[in-house]
Amino acid sequence: MFTQNEITKTQYVPEYLQIAHSLSPVFQKEQCLPLRKVRFQKQQGALHTVGVIDLGPASFPMESLEKQKPQFYDFGQHVVGHVFFTLETIGPPQDAPIKIRISFGEMPCELFGYRESYAGWLSDTWFQEEIVTVDSTPQHIAVPRRFAFRYVCLEILGISQKNTVRLSSLHCIRETSAPTFEVATSKYKGLLGSIDEVSRTTLRECMQSVFEDGPKRDRRLWLGDLRLQALTNYASYKHYDLVKRCLYLFAGMCDAQGRVPSCIYLHPQPHPDTIYLFDYYVLFIPTLLEYVQASGDLPTLRTLWPVARKQISIAMSLLEQDMVREDPTWWAFIDWDDSLDKRLAAQGTFLYCLKSAISITSLLNDQDDHNELLALQHRLKQASRKCFNKELRCFTSGTMQQVSWASQIWMVLGQTIEGDEAKALLLRTERLEHRPMTPYLMHYYVEALLEVGLYEKAREAITKLWGSMVNLGSDTFWEIHNPDDVMFSPYGSVAITSFCHAWSCTPTYLLQKLDEMGAVTH
Amino acid sequence: MFTQNEITKTQYVPEYLQIAHSLSPVFQKEQCLPLRKVRFQKQQGALHTVGVIDLGPASFPMESLEKQKPQFYDFGQHVVGHVFFTLETIGPPQDAPIKIRISFGEMPCELFGYRESYAGWLSDTWFQEEIVTVDSTPQHIAVPRRFAFRYVCLEILGISQKNTVRLSSLHCIRETSAPTFEVATSKYKGLLGSIDEVSRTTLRECMQSVFEDGPKRDRRLWLGDLRLQALTNYASYKHYDLVKRCLYLFAGMCDAQGRVPSCIYLHPQPHPDTIYLFDYYVLFIPTLLEYVQASGDLPTLRTLWPVARKQISIAMSLLEQDMVREDPTWWAFIDWDDSLDKRLAAQGTFLYCLKSAISITSLLNDQDDHNELLALQHRLKQASRKCFNKELRCFTSGTMQQVSWASQIWMVLGQTIEGDEAKALLLRTERLEHRPMTPYLMHYYVEALLEVGLYEKAREAITKLWGSMVNLGSDTFWEIHNPDDVMFSPYGSVAITSFCHAWSCTPTYLLQKLDEMGAVTH
Repeated sequence: MFTQNEITKTQYVPEYLQIAHSLSPVFQKEQCLPLRKVRFQKQQGALHTVGVIDLGPASFPMESLEKQKPQFYDFGQHVVGHVFFTLETIGPPQDAPIKIRISFGEMPCELFGYRESYAGWLSDTWFQEEIVTVDSTPQHIAVPRRFAFRYVCLEILGISQKNTVRLSSLHCIRETSAPTFEVATSKYKGLLGSIDEVSRTTLRECMQSVFEDGPKRDRRLWLGDLRLQALTNYASYKHYDLVKRCLYLFAGMCDAQGRVPSCIYLHPQPHPDTIYLFDYYVLFIPTLLEYVQASGDLPTLRTLWPVARKQISIAMSLLEQDMVREDPTWWAFIDWDDSLDKRLAAQGTFLYCLKSAISITSLLNDQDDHNELLALQHRLKQASRKCFNKELRCFTSGTMQQVSWASQIWMVLGQTIEGDEAKALLLRTERLEHRPMTPYLMHYYVEALLEVGLYEKAREAITKLWGSMVNLGSDTFWEIHNPDDVMFSPYGSVAITSFCHAWSCTPTYLLQKLDEMGAVTH
Repeated sequence: MFTQNEITKTQYVPEYLQIAHSLSPVFQKEQCLPLRKVRFQKQQGALHTVGVIDLGPASFPMESLEKQKPQFYDFGQHVVGHVFFTLETIGPPQDAPIKIRISFGEMPCELFGYRESYAGWLSDTWFQEEIVTVDSTPQHIAVPRRFAFRYVCLEILGISQKNTVRLSSLHCIRETSAPTFEVATSKYKGLLGSIDEVSRTTLRECMQSVFEDGPKRDRRLWLGDLRLQALTNYASYKHYDLVKRCLYLFAGMCDAQGRVPSCIYLHPQPHPDTIYLFDYYVLFIPTLLEYVQASGDLPTLRTLWPVARKQISIAMSLLEQDMVREDPTWWAFIDWDDSLDKRLAAQGTFLYCLKSAISITSLLNDQDDHNELLALQHRLKQASRKCFNKELRCFTSGTMQQVSWASQIWMVLGQTIEGDEAKALLLRTERLEHRPMTPYLMHYYVEALLEVGLYEKAREAITKLWGSMVNLGSDTFWEIHNPDDVMFSPYGSVAITSFCHAWSCTPTYLLQKLDEMGAVTH
């Protein structure tokens, strides 16, 4: 019916985009100063093998900056914002332009030892730096662009032999659309308390003009990430309008087929990427429902339900004998795992989202649609259950009958399997292959554990993955983390990792659910 | 009496600086477009061995810019101004920052084959470039800073594998404080006419907030250059206020001893360099006189004469038996020639400037001072004449009795030797060692030839040096040019040369003087 070009042609809905625009957030801004000067060195045992040596407090003016001798500053915490510094000449007047590089790292590995040898497939332009040429000093320099960092490096690349310069100021005006920079002390004790606080810090740093996936990389709105941020937001900042803004942005830029795009860019004008992931577009449904449940904003539910409902029809067009069939292109995310057969997990995601759709039809008193969706859910569950391999005692996906965590997780979340059977399945899952690669899938694993009442396991999983990042000294959660292999990256280098990433911010939400069950020890 | 620090401590005169500020010029602005795409190649016989291959007209949007494949554009003429370009993405939306380098050259050698190997003593930050990181496209980019160039190079340094970009616009808003960009057709024919036009183009390009020495390098106000620009200005644009502004800037920033600084920076606030060249500060006197003669602005003469007069007293403190003695530090410019003994040329410069001072005392009817300066002039001439070596039939400088063009030129200009003797001396000068290295000293050589009536020689000298640059295809005159060795540079590389330089702009003035003598063939 549609050619590839036709189906991705964006149908902009000006009314929705106008609503999104009217909800552009107010930003909190705050000045941050570097706490100390540091230097880095190769050090076995240190995080990413980069040791951080404290060179004492950062007090300005600094000693002179020598050509090709970088100076490193530690702001002591993750910040997102615009950076300003003042360069001044000591001695004879400046007689030639000064070229200075300012580079930023969320982690030391971004500034020491990895950048030069980077050969991964993501663009190396994600390494945060600017090269500024200064014609006269003293000069107060506003570094172009926004950066996300804890560490800053300044290095003189070129200067007249006659001149000497030094930094006489350096600061960042940090920005967030969260209602405050303050991260309230957790009600939980010990490591779980720290995990809770780091979750909320991570979310705060990602709350910008929209819920960004990562303020360093990729700085854009992803639908899959949005849902997890929104859930954490309801358990923390309760900034409902920012979720509403994002929902209208997505709804305002569906393709000709009606699919909600997976990813949106804000600049120079809001526009979608040409990516339409099956699991992401059906997740628009629970994202909408949960927003309405949290905010009580029924008018938005009424306005956007047709868009959400459309995702079900589109998903149904991918069914074959009540099973989701694979699209030829990159079609579902599920996890960063190319070797993963995603069909059954996508089926589970659809079932999971159907639950939300059915709840919405109840809210809207649409009995006909309610019944229709219940029937669809029933058929899909029936079909899904055929994928349970009695011999292996787990679900398998695809014609190659692949076994994976993702399939079990999503079959549980889709309620294809329930009660003690589901509990037993998740207990067996720990020993299966194709473990989750990302905190994104780990979130859904924990959600599945909560669903079946495995609270102790849920707490363990949270502690193992997210607690490991806390124990490594991070104040934000990372896009990717393997506690057993800290150097792991799906991008060819750990240095290109987003160390403050939306989809990793959910422990605050998960802990709240645990807490509601009385399963967090205060 | 003064220590080095004390004497260079600037005595800012707010009234003078206020006058200078009030004379900040109005700028003419005009949009310039690139004429053609070019590429460069190593080519024996081409200027600086860089051949320019025409790739056809520059029509936008251009073909895509590939990573590390620079695109070169030729604006067809020398321009000074701010550059703007638009980058747009073709195909999938931009999904990572794009890093682009834009570099500029007055000559092809600045962009091809020389920059990478540059190891000269001037800062390599004079190579004109900016590296810009672009977060979203399409984006109209205002390149930071002002540039002086004919050629522009754009090169993508980093981009997502998924993206393709192209230039959809490129232009320069050129700027001058000359009253017009138009260079009127010369009244002279042939090569002399071209020389005249290129002189005025050179001057126009250097006319910015002040008379800059070079709009590419060093972009500042030098006193020695100012005098030559002012003379050419009187013979062309007649922008008297710009000269007046520069005179007040110099007079407003003398050191504690009263010396006029040699060089002034405008940013961030006007301030002098710590350079006080003997020949430059005495040249303040003729610069003031000539300004008043051209403009009729006697009030400025009355206001600034004490500053000019002070230079004589300071110069006298360097006299020993009526001869200028050398200062221990870099004390006189005369020419870019470290091996040159500058004492006698400095003596001649002082004598030359005394002539102007004596004229000023006449204008001001100060008979006492007039007589005092005449007596001083007489004594200095007497002492200078002792440096004439009868055996060598020329002047020698210093205890080593060095023979140079500079000494003969300045002895003639200082009227230590006159009439036929001076004429004969200048004819012999052609065969001497220590030839002029710069158009600056060549200017004074031609002035000396005019002084003694050697018009044919003057025309020959103009044709040889300045005509050579015209014949090499340049539309501006260079800081340094040796017609017999085009690769010559005192800075270690021809690519760092200022190819549009103030002190080389004087042929318009010199030709006018020749013309007044009926010695230019129309």
